Amino acid sequence: MNMIKRMLIGRPLKSTQLGEQKLNVFKALAILSSDALSSVAYGTEQILIVLATLSAAAFWYSIPIAIGILVLLTALILSYRQIIFAYPQGGGAYMVSRQNLGKTTGLVAGGSLLVDYILTVAVSVTAGTDAIISAFPFLHGYRVSISVVLIIVIMLLNLRGLNESATILAYPIYLFVIALLMLSVVGLYKIFTGQISPTLHTPLGTPVTGISLFLLLKAFSSGCSALTGVEAISNAIPSFKEPAPKNAAKTIILMGLLLGILFTGITFLAFYYGIGPKPTDTVVSQIASQTFGRNVIYYFIQGITAIMLVLAANTGFSAFPLLAYNLAKDKYIPRMFTNRGDRLGYSNGIMALAVGSIILVIAFKGNTTSLIPLYAVGVFIPFTLSQTGMIIKWLREKPKGWFTKLLANLLGTLITFSVLVIFFVTKFDHVWPILIFLPIIVFIFTRIEKHYQAVGEQLRVDSAFTDSKIEGNVVVIPVAGITTVVENSIKYAKSITDEVIAVYISFDPEDEKIFKEKWNKWNPDVRLVTIRSSYRSVIVPLCKFIDTVERKAEESNFQMTVLIPQFITKKNWHNILHNQSSLIIRTYLLYKKDVIVTTLPYHFRK
Amino acid sequence: MNMIKRMLIGRPLKSTQLGEQKLNVFKALAILSSDALSSVAYGTEQILIVLATLSAAAFWYSIPIAIGILVLLTALILSYRQIIFAYPQGGGAYMVSRQNLGKTTGLVAGGSLLVDYILTVAVSVTAGTDAIISAFPFLHGYRVSISVVLIIVIMLLNLRGLNESATILAYPIYLFVIALLMLSVVGLYKIFTGQISPTLHTPLGTPVTGISLFLLLKAFSSGCSALTGVEAISNAIPSFKEPAPKNAAKTIILMGLLLGILFTGITFLAFYYGIGPKPTDTVVSQIASQTFGRNVIYYFIQGITAIMLVLAANTGFSAFPLLAYNLAKDKYIPRMFTNRGDRLGYSNGIMALAVGSIILVIAFKGNTTSLIPLYAVGVFIPFTLSQTGMIIKWLREKPKGWFTKLLANLLGTLITFSVLVIFFVTKFDHVWPILIFLPIIVFIFTRIEKHYQAVGEQLRVDSAFTDSKIEGNVVVIPVAGITTVVENSIKYAKSITDEVIAVYISFDPEDEKIFKEKWNKWNPDVRLVTIRSSYRSVIVPLCKFIDTVERKAEESNFQMTVLIPQFITKKNWHNILHNQSSLIIRTYLLYKKDVIVTTLPYHFRK
Repeated sequence: MNMIKRMLIGRPLKSTQLGEQKLNVFKALAILSSDALSSVAYGTEQILIVLATLSAAAFWYSIPIAIGILVLLTALILSYRQIIFAYPQGGGAYMVSRQNLGKTTGLVAGGSLLVDYILTVAVSVTAGTDAIISAFPFLHGYRVSISVVLIIVIMLLNLRGLNESATILAYPIYLFVIALLMLSVVGLYKIFTGQISPTLHTPLGTPVTGISLFLLLKAFSSGCSALTGVEAISNAIPSFKEPAPKNAAKTIILMGLLLGILFTGITFLAFYYGIGPKPTDTVVSQIASQTFGRNVIYYFIQGITAIMLVLAANTGFSAFPLLAYNLAKDKYIPRMFTNRGDRLGYSNGIMALAVGSIILVIAFKGNTTSLIPLYAVGVFIPFTLSQTGMIIKWLREKPKGWFTKLLANLLGTLITFSVLVIFFVTKFDHVWPILIFLPIIVFIFTRIEKHYQAVGEQLRVDSAFTDSKIEGNVVVIPVAGITTVVENSIKYAKSITDEVIAVYISFDPEDEKIFKEKWNKWNPDVRLVTIRSSYRSVIVPLCKFIDTVERKAEESNFQMTVLIPQFITKKNWHNILHNQSSLIIRTYLLYKKDVIVTTLPYHFRK
Repeated sequence: MNMIKRMLIGRPLKSTQLGEQKLNVFKALAILSSDALSSVAYGTEQILIVLATLSAAAFWYSIPIAIGILVLLTALILSYRQIIFAYPQGGGAYMVSRQNLGKTTGLVAGGSLLVDYILTVAVSVTAGTDAIISAFPFLHGYRVSISVVLIIVIMLLNLRGLNESATILAYPIYLFVIALLMLSVVGLYKIFTGQISPTLHTPLGTPVTGISLFLLLKAFSSGCSALTGVEAISNAIPSFKEPAPKNAAKTIILMGLLLGILFTGITFLAFYYGIGPKPTDTVVSQIASQTFGRNVIYYFIQGITAIMLVLAANTGFSAFPLLAYNLAKDKYIPRMFTNRGDRLGYSNGIMALAVGSIILVIAFKGNTTSLIPLYAVGVFIPFTLSQTGMIIKWLREKPKGWFTKLLANLLGTLITFSVLVIFFVTKFDHVWPILIFLPIIVFIFTRIEKHYQAVGEQLRVDSAFTDSKIEGNVVVIPVAGITTVVENSIKYAKSITDEVIAVYISFDPEDEKIFKEKWNKWNPDVRLVTIRSSYRSVIVPLCKFIDTVERKAEESNFQMTVLIPQFITKKNWHNILHNQSSLIIRTYLLYKKDVIVTTLPYHFRK
């Protein structure tokens, strides 16, 4: 068991090795931006799908819409850069909302992010699986299995530790960036050298019949799916090398630039080539095949895009455990999410995320399309909340240059809130579940916090240690026969106190008499109490007797302990050969009564 | 939970009420003979199916074959009557074989009976389900579910207790006997009054081309399926009212008579009416419709036959737990099969049988036909072994009139052994699994016995009690903070001994220093040991420390105890909010090390 664990996740690391695991800008960009960058692969397509419901002539609207999205991207990046410096301990939208907009709003942000990371993993992996299946149609029918295996592989990489997975993940991400940059440059070169006919596209400004603001807004909100994942860096600042906030800020600017350039390139080429969405051929694939033909370079671009989509899931694995750590530190989710595993990652968070996303993949049968709107709306809730929180912060603190900062966040708030409204107006049939689950999650958060607070109060020691009033001990030993185990138990009990009582439960009078005689002959100098059980139950009469002894013990300030021998079998299957009565009695005494139980292990030698 | 249990199986009964639950002849016949009597419904048909492979002219051979089976029945009944008096404590084939033929042979008999009772339940219930589905074709497709529900219902009746289920079961069984007797009498009346044409059947002695001894033997062995279940009474003697053996003997004779009469009647009517087997219409159904026409009486006979087949499963539920009790008393199967439940039945045996037969029903998808040969061969193995055992007994003991007794058993042995040989020769493709499973079961039996013997040796106390050499106690308390729980633990530990050590595992030096200061300020007059854990593990450094303490304690004949506080949460879901470290540490110390662990429960008030 342990060997398998070692093989899969590596030898344990010392806590002091934590610094070595931290990320520089190059690795951070690889590990934290795969989600955002991979959205380029479908962002433009989402816009065109909505415009295509009208006509191909409407495709030129993708250019103004893309400009709108670039504005939104700029506002988001600048705003999150401000958040990074304002909250260098990480936590992103959750921290910002909590500190500026109050506890409940913070929990709404935290809850929607938590769910969203699970959706990130599910959506990215299923989308990647779709790409794989398109390439290898014989894998069709194993859709769910492939997604589940991919999630487990990414989970294992993350359990090995951030750094090692970053090294592995850096290659495909940079290859993806290079591939798409190359595609854009070659495409633009071909356009400028006149190799692409300018008659393929409808010119900008061509009047389109039936165009409406509603449709344009819907197309805009669909295109916003290209922006999912930009917040990941602001949540993960503690994973950066020092100076962490500076490195994180550099990384987010770099990511924004890359995302902007790639998105612009793809959208412009799609417009100039006059490309529309096709169910069997993605927009990126169409651009690539028109630029290079279906040769090695085309397959390289397609392959690396598929890998990227799968790796985008990794962003969730980096961000979720840190958010869970923050929520657990604030006592909104179970404490175990604060524990670092053998390889210094927050392994419980990593595993919880894997389990959650596997459940989603199985529940939705690996179908991506029904998850995407839910995913996007889940992203824009914390976007809006964190921008709002920053406005409140600037208004309250008014630091140097606060007005410019305020303007950036105000613009961000207006745009993200509008996008959110557009989502609920144009896609209500897909996004309604968020209105049910979010309140439930926030309710659970507050219930857990309430429990931890109650526990803290109950455990608090107010004064210095005052010594006990316990005058002595009584030990009760349930016995079922005269064996070496009973002998050991009695010896142990007598070493603690002189007040030892053995109790024997008999099912018939004959047996009771015989046992008494045997006991007296054996003569361990311990009082034996026999109890007749009419209903063949051991626990009920035993507990009645224990109650009586305890009452008497309390009267003279004595403490009572029940001593229970437990057989430890040599082989596991032997366990079913022994009535697990000691286990049952112990559990009953501890949980139902309030009795101190001492367990005396007896290891069978064979 | 408890309320549901009460509702389903009734209030618990006192052990002294055991006598009231015992069976008189009337009830015993109902409860223990349903398996044997229900076989009448298909015994004749099994013979005709084999003869029909030749021609309808061969049907007259069913008469001499039936006579052969009646001889076998007589021999079996007389032989088992002798067994009842010789072994009044019950156990049947298992006891007889074990005592006379040696341990291994006894285990072969016991093992095949144990499996056979599971097969009894599976076969009877699926056959009954088939009858129900024939009547209500819309239930087709729920075959397995219906069988499973029926098994569960019969299980619940048995968990309520023998007596109550006997009362419920007596009605259909006696109605079945009355129905078939009525059918035979009316049929014979019609024959004697000449209402049935004598030309319908081929006369006895008509030469048949192609007839062979092999075919006749195969038909005979198929007909022997009518004899399954006759041994049940001899296994269940302790369930009878006193004088138990006499009452059991009366019951088995009565059952033999009823079985003989009904089988003769059905076989003779089938012969005289010239009835052959049809896939959609059973032989009994054909006789009934020719005698009464398809009126109310016909449907009554069909309905009661179906119910009988289902209730035949109940024989298994009466016999299996008693056999399991005997095997458990001899330590071949887990001890828990000797426990009586709330309603005085051997509930573990009852539930094990239900689970086993449900597994068989599901594995065989509710298909009866493939199970029947296996079932019959499983019956004839213990038949043969018990007869052989009785021969040995008479030869060894030579009681008064032993020679007549010997002859009866010798005849029985010869016939049952021949049937067994015929089974293996004519139906090997169906019965081979018994050759694999039986040795495995016997192997498991002996392994379990070996374990119990080893345990017994290890626990044996040879001499009188010698007092201990324990000079004193050391108590180690792992602490994680300064709380009321730690306060209580220290008070308790100090009441036992002066040697109390608190141990604190820290993950970084800063934390270690702070805790030491806090502890000294609190000042509980207990030595604190702090240990730095580099790998964030609690168990490994704790166990190392405990090992050291234990070594030192042993040097001065001190006994070491580890005191572990355990939080008991008010609500179950709260458990996931606490690192179950106390549970993990306790389990580790008990199972991996050999350390005495005292658990101090702390019940949260909210």
